[in-house]
Amino acid sequence: MKAQLIEECIVDHLNLLLPHHPVSEVYHYACLPGGKFFRPSLVWSILKDLNPALYSQSVVSKRSAHAFLASSVELHHSYTLIHDDLPSMDNDTTRRGKPCTHLAFGEWRALLAGDGLLNLSFQLIGKIRHTRISDVISFYSWATGPKGLIQGQVLDLSHEMTKSFKNTLKTHELKTARLIQVAILTSAALSSEKKNSVLEKDLYRFSKLLGVNFQLIDDLSELAEVTLSEHELDVNPWLKFTNEAFEELIRGLDQFQAIAKKYQLKATNEIVREYYLKMNSLIEPNLTIINQHLKNQIDLRPVIFKLNSFN
Amino acid sequence: MKAQLIEECIVDHLNLLLPHHPVSEVYHYACLPGGKFFRPSLVWSILKDLNPALYSQSVVSKRSAHAFLASSVELHHSYTLIHDDLPSMDNDTTRRGKPCTHLAFGEWRALLAGDGLLNLSFQLIGKIRHTRISDVISFYSWATGPKGLIQGQVLDLSHEMTKSFKNTLKTHELKTARLIQVAILTSAALSSEKKNSVLEKDLYRFSKLLGVNFQLIDDLSELAEVTLSEHELDVNPWLKFTNEAFEELIRGLDQFQAIAKKYQLKATNEIVREYYLKMNSLIEPNLTIINQHLKNQIDLRPVIFKLNSFN
Repeated sequence: MKAQLIEECIVDHLNLLLPHHPVSEVYHYACLPGGKFFRPSLVWSILKDLNPALYSQSVVSKRSAHAFLASSVELHHSYTLIHDDLPSMDNDTTRRGKPCTHLAFGEWRALLAGDGLLNLSFQLIGKIRHTRISDVISFYSWATGPKGLIQGQVLDLSHEMTKSFKNTLKTHELKTARLIQVAILTSAALSSEKKNSVLEKDLYRFSKLLGVNFQLIDDLSELAEVTLSEHELDVNPWLKFTNEAFEELIRGLDQFQAIAKKYQLKATNEIVREYYLKMNSLIEPNLTIINQHLKNQIDLRPVIFKLNSFN
Repeated sequence: MKAQLIEECIVDHLNLLLPHHPVSEVYHYACLPGGKFFRPSLVWSILKDLNPALYSQSVVSKRSAHAFLASSVELHHSYTLIHDDLPSMDNDTTRRGKPCTHLAFGEWRALLAGDGLLNLSFQLIGKIRHTRISDVISFYSWATGPKGLIQGQVLDLSHEMTKSFKNTLKTHELKTARLIQVAILTSAALSSEKKNSVLEKDLYRFSKLLGVNFQLIDDLSELAEVTLSEHELDVNPWLKFTNEAFEELIRGLDQFQAIAKKYQLKATNEIVREYYLKMNSLIEPNLTIINQHLKNQIDLRPVIFKLNSFN
């Protein structure tokens, strides 16, 4: 699924569900142009891998179950970004190269647009008619709710995250992996009428590893800057837990790739491969800088090898 | 359904769905002790009126569909209150006689607890297994989403609400009536396996009128204070649109009571009657003060009569 098609669906769905009122601009601003659409791409790739016939039918319609699902996870992601950026949270100023929503439109509009996008993510699920819809809502809301993504934000903002590497991993699992798990597991659930428990159990681990690795690689890539902000110095797990982060990522990549090999999810692996290569293009050319930040404590070549050789 | 039972269900559901972490105290603080539980009471009364046998079965279990639904609408209501009270929104200091959540626990915890409760309201719906579950999610998220309750908050905060009586009515419909409509219509949808379109259409109007009247009566009761705050002077529709508010309420009460008479929803009417009497106990003894605020432009006795005589 091309990014452009994902974006066209999001535009269609926003137009369908937003009021005819100037405030709708705030919602559009917060969602589009999007980032790399990693999560909605996974929704489509999993469908393509598990049910190519249904994929071919679904991909031509902006109102198919998976089209709604793909927009849903992206809008949910956008809501978390708006709220994370608010002054009382991370107090950020820019997002995706433009002023944060609360700076562009004021704080109350940003807050309400966040609430609205969270709501829309469930409204889009409500448009899907499927035997497994209650399972989808249960998993989705559990993964993103007070025991899931939101608890990850709590661990981050309360600074519990940085107190131990175990806490860091838990935060990455909740704050980053859970929504990636939603993309993969709900797409799988909607790819057939019948539940496949073995597959879903494996995909649960697959997506959890993918999400945690995703965040650890992202953290590593942030060390490619010569000067780090005070916040980065405080929270980057590679600085505080260098060896543990390295070992966890190597182990995580191995475990992930073992499941990937078992299921041969071609379309999904391709998305992961693209991501790995993109991240490696930030890491490998800047290895000297990164190693300086890490005081040359570890040899990062195995990470680079694993990112470059995945397929 | 007694308030105590509604509260016991909420406690049970919060314990089920919140993490074992100190932050859970924030969620509890924001929800309990509750207000008058008007919305969850309507969930139960509608079930009792439409399907007494199912009511008898459901009411003895904290994990029945309607028990989850009743908690869901109350937690959703609580999320809107937390976010409404935030400094960037209404900047309130007290709620239900205690400091607002953001004053008791800090702003980011209040923001996240609000997000979490919004999420939980859908998580509780995800626990329900019913043929009409997609209809329930669709209506619920539409009514509370960017075209519904949230747009009501937008009209309020942007001061569009006070620009005309039409805008005031629209705001009341969105911000107040929609969630009351959710309580009534989703409860009706889950009260039988088959859809009854005529009934649901009438209940849509019934609940919309109930909600708009609810807010107009509430606005009127706020004039019972000798001294009004600047904010109250700005937004109270009875001060700015005295005759229109009066005529709308009289007409609304008549229309509402006509549908109530048609369906004879005994349990639901009883809840409405209790509410009317409670509100009238604030209005009638303070009629002189209220009339002074309204510069004696209208004769409020027909309102008082309608509130006292409903059954």
